[in-house]
Amino acid sequence: MSAPESELDFVQPWFLGPAAENDRMLEELVVEFLRDHAYWRRNFHPEDGLRISVGARHAQGFLDTQARMRQELYRMSAALKRAVPFFHPRYVGHMTGDLLIPGLVAKLITTLYNPNNVSEEAAPVTLEWELQVGEQLARMFGYAVDDDAEPCAWGHLTSGGTVANYEALWNLRSVKFYGIALQSGAARVGIDPGPVGPAAKPLSAYTPWELLNLSVDDTIALRRDVARALRADHPPERFAEFAAAVRAERIESLGTAGFFMKHGVEPPRVLVSTSAHYSWAKGMKVLGLGTANLVHVAVDDRMRMAVPHLREELDRAEDEGVSVLAVVGMLGTTEFGTVDPIHEIADERDARRARGFDFGLHVDAAWGGYLTSVFRRPDGSFRERDEVAEGFRYFPSDTVHRAFEAVSRADSITVDPHKMGYVPYPAGAFVARNREVVDFITQEAAYVFDLGDEEQERPRREKLHNLGQYILEGSKPGASAAAVYVTHRVLPLDSDGLGRLLGLTVRACEAFYDSVEAAQERLEGRVRLCVPFQPDSNLLCLALNPWNNTSAAAMNRFSRAVFARMRVDGERPVQIKTFIGSYTSLLKKTLPGDQTHRILTGLRLDPDTLRLLPADPGREADHLFILRHTLMNPWLLAGPDDRSYIDHYWDWLVEVIDEVLAEGGWRGGTGAPAAP
Amino acid sequence: MSAPESELDFVQPWFLGPAAENDRMLEELVVEFLRDHAYWRRNFHPEDGLRISVGARHAQGFLDTQARMRQELYRMSAALKRAVPFFHPRYVGHMTGDLLIPGLVAKLITTLYNPNNVSEEAAPVTLEWELQVGEQLARMFGYAVDDDAEPCAWGHLTSGGTVANYEALWNLRSVKFYGIALQSGAARVGIDPGPVGPAAKPLSAYTPWELLNLSVDDTIALRRDVARALRADHPPERFAEFAAAVRAERIESLGTAGFFMKHGVEPPRVLVSTSAHYSWAKGMKVLGLGTANLVHVAVDDRMRMAVPHLREELDRAEDEGVSVLAVVGMLGTTEFGTVDPIHEIADERDARRARGFDFGLHVDAAWGGYLTSVFRRPDGSFRERDEVAEGFRYFPSDTVHRAFEAVSRADSITVDPHKMGYVPYPAGAFVARNREVVDFITQEAAYVFDLGDEEQERPRREKLHNLGQYILEGSKPGASAAAVYVTHRVLPLDSDGLGRLLGLTVRACEAFYDSVEAAQERLEGRVRLCVPFQPDSNLLCLALNPWNNTSAAAMNRFSRAVFARMRVDGERPVQIKTFIGSYTSLLKKTLPGDQTHRILTGLRLDPDTLRLLPADPGREADHLFILRHTLMNPWLLAGPDDRSYIDHYWDWLVEVIDEVLAEGGWRGGTGAPAAP
Repeated sequence: MSAPESELDFVQPWFLGPAAENDRMLEELVVEFLRDHAYWRRNFHPEDGLRISVGARHAQGFLDTQARMRQELYRMSAALKRAVPFFHPRYVGHMTGDLLIPGLVAKLITTLYNPNNVSEEAAPVTLEWELQVGEQLARMFGYAVDDDAEPCAWGHLTSGGTVANYEALWNLRSVKFYGIALQSGAARVGIDPGPVGPAAKPLSAYTPWELLNLSVDDTIALRRDVARALRADHPPERFAEFAAAVRAERIESLGTAGFFMKHGVEPPRVLVSTSAHYSWAKGMKVLGLGTANLVHVAVDDRMRMAVPHLREELDRAEDEGVSVLAVVGMLGTTEFGTVDPIHEIADERDARRARGFDFGLHVDAAWGGYLTSVFRRPDGSFRERDEVAEGFRYFPSDTVHRAFEAVSRADSITVDPHKMGYVPYPAGAFVARNREVVDFITQEAAYVFDLGDEEQERPRREKLHNLGQYILEGSKPGASAAAVYVTHRVLPLDSDGLGRLLGLTVRACEAFYDSVEAAQERLEGRVRLCVPFQPDSNLLCLALNPWNNTSAAAMNRFSRAVFARMRVDGERPVQIKTFIGSYTSLLKKTLPGDQTHRILTGLRLDPDTLRLLPADPGREADHLFILRHTLMNPWLLAGPDDRSYIDHYWDWLVEVIDEVLAEGGWRGGTGAPAAP
Repeated sequence: MSAPESELDFVQPWFLGPAAENDRMLEELVVEFLRDHAYWRRNFHPEDGLRISVGARHAQGFLDTQARMRQELYRMSAALKRAVPFFHPRYVGHMTGDLLIPGLVAKLITTLYNPNNVSEEAAPVTLEWELQVGEQLARMFGYAVDDDAEPCAWGHLTSGGTVANYEALWNLRSVKFYGIALQSGAARVGIDPGPVGPAAKPLSAYTPWELLNLSVDDTIALRRDVARALRADHPPERFAEFAAAVRAERIESLGTAGFFMKHGVEPPRVLVSTSAHYSWAKGMKVLGLGTANLVHVAVDDRMRMAVPHLREELDRAEDEGVSVLAVVGMLGTTEFGTVDPIHEIADERDARRARGFDFGLHVDAAWGGYLTSVFRRPDGSFRERDEVAEGFRYFPSDTVHRAFEAVSRADSITVDPHKMGYVPYPAGAFVARNREVVDFITQEAAYVFDLGDEEQERPRREKLHNLGQYILEGSKPGASAAAVYVTHRVLPLDSDGLGRLLGLTVRACEAFYDSVEAAQERLEGRVRLCVPFQPDSNLLCLALNPWNNTSAAAMNRFSRAVFARMRVDGERPVQIKTFIGSYTSLLKKTLPGDQTHRILTGLRLDPDTLRLLPADPGREADHLFILRHTLMNPWLLAGPDDRSYIDHYWDWLVEVIDEVLAEGGWRGGTGAPAAP
């Protein structure tokens, strides 16, 4: 249970470190580039002289203000001492770790320049970096990014994965319903271009169902075909009239309600697994698509999307004549780090596409996306499973290996640099396989671009410098782009770069998983331990049940009391914490019956105590409370006293378990600890 | 044309300064609190020893990596020298200025701790600060924020004003259509509570139109009444059944299309002035409401919403039986800084509410919101117009004064600390008058909260610490909250604090406005200058037309050539720029006819050359290109050589104008400069 020496050596220069070991390096860099910024200011119109005179600094008012600032900053710094020690191997809670020094320094220094990546005018330097970050990520995922590639991918940063997920739905919706608007607009002005589109027939000859089931690429091609045909045959005024008619027919103009009513189209469905992040439900609400149209696909015993159930749901939609806007695959769930079989979902898409039933495929890789670097060689090729497996005991399973390879078949991807990219908040990202999609969502002078007005187009890559036109957000920090860009430059997204660091975290998870058995033996007769879902990456959850307890509610009380020792407590000094973890819940409502049965049996719980509507809260619950561990610290396997932090964690956890068992409050009645 | 000495003294300690005059102060603060952070780390389990040994720092691999990082950071710092000098009085372009030192230091230092304000568990300190920022802003706007106030306001940060604007629509939609869902859910399970709501009658007795036209407060009260009545009369299972039925009937479940179809309700309209930011159109698209339902209200000759036209549009909606989701008033438009008559809009709302036609009122104060600090006394009272006017020549007009006072009558407000709050990106904010609205949009365990389950409720204020449940975004930077919080603490949002700084910017704008006449005289016979819309705050636009030119297209070419000298150019050193500005366009499509006429006449342009679809691009255009100046630098009135930067700007602008006139390329034919 240790990490290879060479890998630990590799990691040492990158972080400030658990004991701020690299403090001098960080300080030196910050001070140097802070001064570089200050002297940059002095080089802009030095002839203007000073606005703040040297003498002014000694005036009483100046000194008073300065004192007030400093006073308040002392207060701030004092309060921050109760912040969460994310940087430390004793923190195994949420998806935040220490920060990579290059990204951190880039962030701090660029903040002094304060660029706004909404457009090049406010960010002549960092906006280009953001687009390059998009390309770096796209390349890691296996998308083509050469300017002449067709399709050519692009990507950009968001405030987080949640917004990137919204953006995926927004992009796919914009494309999916374009064909119908194009056809209606044409009919309205009495034009019928053709042959156009994949079937090379007149626009009017496509059925609504055909138009709803064109792929993203086919819709883009159809739009181009139509624009080309019309430009050849019609004067500009007629073309403008046509473009206006199409615009008026689009879902963006009519709204979802107006569009579906007018065109007699059923609202589309979105399919995600029950393990998906709650932002998908939120996205359905925000976009007006409705959670009733969010279909939850069951998971298997690895908490991965169950493909047979996916097939059933797709069959059902097809039978009912309801279109599917997207199937969302999870690449690293928030709760368990598990990975959906993206390859099988993509196969399913391909098979149905061939028979005229198509849907968008989005991969929510907010957590797991960066793990692709473990699989990607510096030359861009994808590593064989055996080669990857050399460094690990279980990783990657065949499914995981195939899933990561298949990500390049998705239409778009969410990934969070502020998670496994170890850069500061905020830094999410949205990456799309085909950058032409931006034409469907642009806010810019729609009258020019609405029909792919190729003559007036600047090169696509250049147009993207008006970034705000193509994304959900407005103002956005160029400092985030600098942080991610500099990080990717010095620690490339491949198996020789970031992949080495992330490999350590997967190893830590494997070591943790392997140590469960010994812990079970240590706790024999006192508490039953169970890993509800085998880890696919670097997250691991543990369920704890007192040995003879059969009540879900009592188990929850017990586990909450254990967790109370490892939760963040803003009221008390952080130094009293030995380890800090997080928790999650398995909900009766969403967990498939067979999985519920398996887990309850493993814990020897009475199945009747886990119910949708608990009547007796002393004994019944609608969920199981479990401990969740995110293992992203690189030093987990190299703890003090030549023992790993995982060993130390178990020692401590067993102690806490015994304490809570002894206290007995979890049994029910009075004295139950408050819920976290 | 100068600023009072005392005000300039006041401003001196707050910024790093145009020549980095306060560099030592900044560096000292940064280094001190950076070390404080490092030693904080050393106090967390010091017994663990070092993970990175002292010797490790001398290993070749370590040194190589360190060198690579530094190399890349040099490259970054070199590239950033082409960033935009937002900090300098010679920058009068977009809405970004220098950064207030306290906020900047707070941002930099808190980034080291990297809290995630999605929930208290990841941000035990900064999340509370974010809620306090919401309260500080709410108080500035005149909302009540005492915990026992009814309604009690709240607010939080967003990545920017765009997202805050989406959030406003999302919140208002969630409330507006709740009543109908409540009634349908009740009918579905055969329950009819009553008397409930403002009319104190059975739930079933409300007409759909009545339910659509309840105010936010009334809908909240109705929901509480119903929950109370049901809890009294029905067992928990029945209540749960009812809650589930309501949930299923909500627009969030059914989607907009499903909801409107099922309930036979017309999609609602949103009314904004033609001067509103493009994020409103984007928001209508994203939320699935449709731009066809976004009604653009005409503006008057001050670029303010024309209330007579607003009345017409409201009458039309009322006559057609279409509900109005929101009227959006602009408090400082992005293009002109002009202010809609919020008080008149609110009067209109009150009058129609009284007769059963209600709508949400949102104020988009992304730009102008912070100017409220000029009007707010430290004791919270609102300053009389005469008192405010003492420091200015024109400001505030009666309309502007009343508009700022009336902001407290709105349901919600967008404001951007990263604009006139002088803090780094990203920092937008959403502020709502009634925090109970969050119950309608929560993602948290809907089965508990969906009907205001008061027994199980924790105190509202405490619940808000699960911030991610109540907002659009997921992960969010605690460092932004710290920046805004610390800034507001040391520079309070009143006329003795931030208001003093902002007063200087309004004075600069007045001085600029007053200087136009002299410039017109200087340019007599060469170029006609016109201020298309008189400024309401600190933004000023200038239209330039060569003296005898009558063609809109030629004027645009001329103005673009002038602007080319003051635009950011990432390809060349920033030091070559004398002044940096921005531009905007007056669109034929959106400008009311009378305003177009007035401006064209002033510029002596042939009205026939401004048309929707220009046929002869040499002579005709669909817009007028104008220069835009954002005056947010505090040193604009205190330039070198005892002359203001505004004087220097005119000298330079006249020179540039003469150069461009002489070049003559703008006249048409070849040699026209490329569009920016």
